[in-house]
This record gives sequence, C-alpha cells and structure tokens, in this order.
Amino acid sequence: MSYKIAVLSPVAWRTPPRHYGPWEQVASNIAEGLVEKGWDVTLFATQDSFTKGRLEAVIPAGYEEDNEADAKVAECLHISYLMEQADTFDLIHNHFDFLPLTYTGFIKTPVITTIHGFSSFRIIPVYKKYNTGNNYYVSISNADRHPELTYTATVYNGIDSHDFSFNETPENYLLYFGRIHPDKGTFEAIQIAKKAGWQLLISGIIQDERYFDEKVAPWINQDDILYMGVAGPHQRNQLLGHAAALLHPIRFHEPFGLSVAEAQFCGTPVIAFNKGSMPELIVPAKTGFLVSNIEEAALAVADLPRIHRRHCREWAVKNFSKEKMVDDYIAVYKTILENP
Amino acid sequence: MSYKIAVLSPVAWRTPPRHYGPWEQVASNIAEGLVEKGWDVTLFATQDSFTKGRLEAVIPAGYEEDNEADAKVAECLHISYLMEQADTFDLIHNHFDFLPLTYTGFIKTPVITTIHGFSSFRIIPVYKKYNTGNNYYVSISNADRHPELTYTATVYNGIDSHDFSFNETPENYLLYFGRIHPDKGTFEAIQIAKKAGWQLLISGIIQDERYFDEKVAPWINQDDILYMGVAGPHQRNQLLGHAAALLHPIRFHEPFGLSVAEAQFCGTPVIAFNKGSMPELIVPAKTGFLVSNIEEAALAVADLPRIHRRHCREWAVKNFSKEKMVDDYIAVYKTILENP
Repeated sequence: MSYKIAVLSPVAWRTPPRHYGPWEQVASNIAEGLVEKGWDVTLFATQDSFTKGRLEAVIPAGYEEDNEADAKVAECLHISYLMEQADTFDLIHNHFDFLPLTYTGFIKTPVITTIHGFSSFRIIPVYKKYNTGNNYYVSISNADRHPELTYTATVYNGIDSHDFSFNETPENYLLYFGRIHPDKGTFEAIQIAKKAGWQLLISGIIQDERYFDEKVAPWINQDDILYMGVAGPHQRNQLLGHAAALLHPIRFHEPFGLSVAEAQFCGTPVIAFNKGSMPELIVPAKTGFLVSNIEEAALAVADLPRIHRRHCREWAVKNFSKEKMVDDYIAVYKTILENP
Repeated sequence: MSYKIAVLSPVAWRTPPRHYGPWEQVASNIAEGLVEKGWDVTLFATQDSFTKGRLEAVIPAGYEEDNEADAKVAECLHISYLMEQADTFDLIHNHFDFLPLTYTGFIKTPVITTIHGFSSFRIIPVYKKYNTGNNYYVSISNADRHPELTYTATVYNGIDSHDFSFNETPENYLLYFGRIHPDKGTFEAIQIAKKAGWQLLISGIIQDERYFDEKVAPWINQDDILYMGVAGPHQRNQLLGHAAALLHPIRFHEPFGLSVAEAQFCGTPVIAFNKGSMPELIVPAKTGFLVSNIEEAALAVADLPRIHRRHCREWAVKNFSKEKMVDDYIAVYKTILENP
C-alpha cells in the first residue's frame, strides 16, 4: 500500500502503556498491526513511546507520569502538531477523544475517530458538531452508539493473543477481575460466589476506597473470598486462565468489557449481568451466561459444565483478536480512501 | 473605519462579568470602547453576554456559572467557532490565553493575544511555539514580559473612570483591598498599620482559608483592624476613595495591580512593596511609595501628607483609563493592519 496513515494516540501515558492506559494500548495495537501488514504508519504519541513505524512526538512523557507536565498544554501542542501537517497524510486515525475534532474544520485529510466511550453527556455536542464532512466515527460496540450520532462502523477492541494462553482444565474458583468500584459489581460477585458455594478470587485496583472498605473488605477472609491485589501480565493470564468462570455482574452499560474478552481468550466462560456490550461479547450457553441478578448468576454457576472451554477460545480469537481488529479497521480505511 | 475586529473573550464568566471575571472585563472594556469609536466589532463570548457591537456565541453561559457545562468542551467549541470563520475578520484580538494559539496555524487573519499573566511556567512552550507568523503578543506591563518571548506592545489594563470618583478629603484609615492570600500580603498590611499606629480596613474574598485563620483572623478586633468582607462596586468606590492610603505589600511579581490603579483613580496614594509591575503603576513620592519591607512602609505612612491626591487621579486617568487602553490597542491594530 502507498497510503500514509497517522495514528493519534493520547498523551496521558506512554504508547504502549507501561501498565494502565487502555486507549494508548488500542492505538499501539492498531499502529503495530498495520506496520506488520506493510502499511506506512506514523504514530503521534509521547516522546518515550515506541513503534515499529515512524514516531512523531513533541511531548516528552505522558502527563500522568510527568510532574513537569500540564495536561492541557500537552494535549493542544500534541494535537496541533499533527493537524499542522495533516496534508502529508492520507488518513488520520484519532484515539484522542473529542478535542482533535475541533481542528478538523481546517484540514482536508479524512479523520476516523474511534469513540472509546463517552466520559459524560457533556461531550456529545462536540461529537454532534463534527459528525460531518471529513469526519468518520467508529464505535467500540453497537451498545455504545449514541442515538444522535452517525457511525461508519463498529470495531471491537483487539487483544494480543500471545498475552492469553488457552487452558483446558480450570481450577475450582470463580474470578472477579477489574477495578473495585460499584459500577463493576464487586459486591455482587461476592454474593454470587457465596450463594453458589464457590471460592472467589478478586483481582484489581481499588478505585473506590470507601466502597472497598464498606462493601468488599468485610467479606474477605482469604478462605472462600480472597483479595489478590493487582495482577501484572503474567499473573493476569494465570488468574483468568485457571478460573472456572469470570463473574462480571456490572451495574452500568459497559461499552466494551476487556476482561470479558480476555477471559474467553483463555477458554474461561463469563457469567455477566446483561447490560451494555455484554450480549455482543458473550454467546449465551456457549461461551457464558447473560443473567439479570445474583440468583440467576448463582444458578448459572451450576450450569458451567455445559460450556466447552474451546468454544470460548474460538469465539474470542475470531471476534476479539488484534488481527481481527486491524483487518476491520483496514476495511474501514479502504471504504473511505477508495470511495471519497 | 471599515476593518472588522473579532474580540475573543473567555467563557468562564459572562462578558462583562456579573462580579468576578477580570479577563472578561478587559475584553468587554475593549469591545465597547471600540464600538464607541465607530469600529465594527464582533464579541465572541457566552450567549448571556452583552455588547453594543455584534455578539457571536455558542456556549449558553460561563462554565463557572453553569452546572451543566464542561469547561474543556465549552472552550474548544467556543474557540473553533471563531477560528472556523476567521477569514471574515481583518483582525482577531484574543483574551483567551494559550489555547486559541494552537488554531492559528490554519488561518491567515492576524491574531493579537493579550497575555493576562502566566498561570504557570508550563504554558510558556505554547507561547514560544506561536510567537511567529500572524501572531502578535501584548503584555499588560513591562514587568510581566517573559524574556523568551517577543512582544508587539505593552498596554495597561484600562479602568472605567465612571466607577471611581475623585475624593479630595480622606478619612483616617489605611486600606487593604484584594484577595486574602499570602501572595497579596494581608498579614504584612496588618503589621504596617500596627507599626504606623493607624486603623486598617481589610476588604476582599478569603481565597486561602488557612492563611486567613492563622495569620489574619487573630488580629481582627473590629477596632483598629477591621474585616469588611467583600465589596460591591459602590462600596469599593467608597472604601478606596476614603482611604488615606492603599497598602499593597505584595509578595509576588504581580503582573498588573488593578486595585493600585483604581485607588489612584479615587485620588488615594498607594504604599506598595517594590515588585512586579509596581514601578510602572506608582510614581514614587508623587502618587505613592515603593518600599522594601514593613518598616519602610510604616515610615511611608508618615510621609502621606506629602502626596497631593489630585496628582494620583491625574496620573491614573492619563495612564490607566479605558480610553487610554482603547487608544493604545487601536494603535497596535493599525500597526498590524496597515503594515502587513
């Protein structure tokens, strides 16, 4: 291909991130996946980022990792640096939320924006204003589409299959994996495990201290309810792969449940509350169960033997791999580049 | 004149502000002053703003006054709205700090930016990057100029002389007028008054609660040290006009001391610590005194009879009136418009 693609990553964290940084991670996965397929890719990210493509950077380090940094300054210098050379690219792929859109009225290069979720209804007016001309929006699940916006495609986040190995024979525990926060249903997961009479392992950062202290910590006994702290990449693969099931009793419309896809990559089925993107991520009775409440979830635990773990793996590889994501984005690029 | 001028106000507050909003106030003073002189002015501000020129607005109300608002969304929609129609103006006068600069690489219209002070050294890189091309910087005092930037002019903030009436015969009190904050030297003002044996009236918002509790409140007895709360426009004129002197013992390099100019408008001399813009605002021994410490300030109080209050008024009207500011900006505009 001779097309020149600019991938605009956020500058909150390095690309790829050292630990946390989900948008930077997706931007990196796309940039590297395109390079592997021979595309001419320029990654706009922090100066300490790395890519097998070309790196363009004016901000030394992620503003979340740099005491000297001012987020607003970093953002506008980073974005304007790309926009001021927009005409040297055939396509810009924006992973930086809404601010770059407000520079697109001045450039002719088409801009694809992956909307990685809406932080607030207050940002909708920007997306509405720029839902036109050379702007194209991609949703990360059908569930996350805003009814007042027009989208070009849904492309699911893609996972590097090297990070999650298939495990045929699980151990006898259920897993909660994610931020400790009321939205994520840590308390509900504990109740499901108690009701089903299973051991529960809990892994994740404590995002809501008060919730942890009041609703989670009182149940932790390191016997049937265990808190494992935060897992690095290796432990994450172990925890997810050896679980009999991942419990995902969310209380919000999650745009895309990354751990739900990751668990299935390991062959681990998922019991999830039927909200947000869950129906797109789980095939009921084949790769997990979609339930409405704690009682139904506890009953689903008894049904786990009906699930073939290989089906979970196959479904995840087919739909949520990095390769699938890159192929889907290439299809979007071609639609725009070849049908201007 | 047939030139079309766009004045870009911030959208933190209404233009002009109801109470607080210093940058919005200056933007308003300039816009209205230009209209009075027959210029074609479009004010870009919140929708609840008003002007005798044309109002262009996409943000309903200042984000500091509107619970529904998101500051970042309001800022980028407001700025891009002007920039996307930049070519319909002969000149843009920016009062909105650094963010608009990052859109100027796409437009041909000259942009004058009044730098109303640097909130942090972290914003300097943006000013450095855009100190070129069709961008022109104006400082609000010579003292506030950053050594690495090039400026077109210094224009002092202009005060509406209707708001401050001359008073020949003051009462026997000293005045502290401003935010209660260590930078502003509230504690030092108290010590000066004590040492000089004068009554001190203190007026201003309590910006630093702990500083107020620990360093200011213990001295307040409503006898010789009085706290008057926050003054509205009428009381402000009364307090400033009837003071024997304004004490301004600042501990930082204040870019422009608005109350220092306002006091002199009323005929009230100012005793200030010799920092920042103070040497540009005060004529020593003629409109006040520049001192180095509490002792010198207390001695200066004894010298107050040497000051003719009419000289203070004359100096302020000549240098810090709205009319003077507008004339100075018109001179800057003409330099740019007529020598492209």
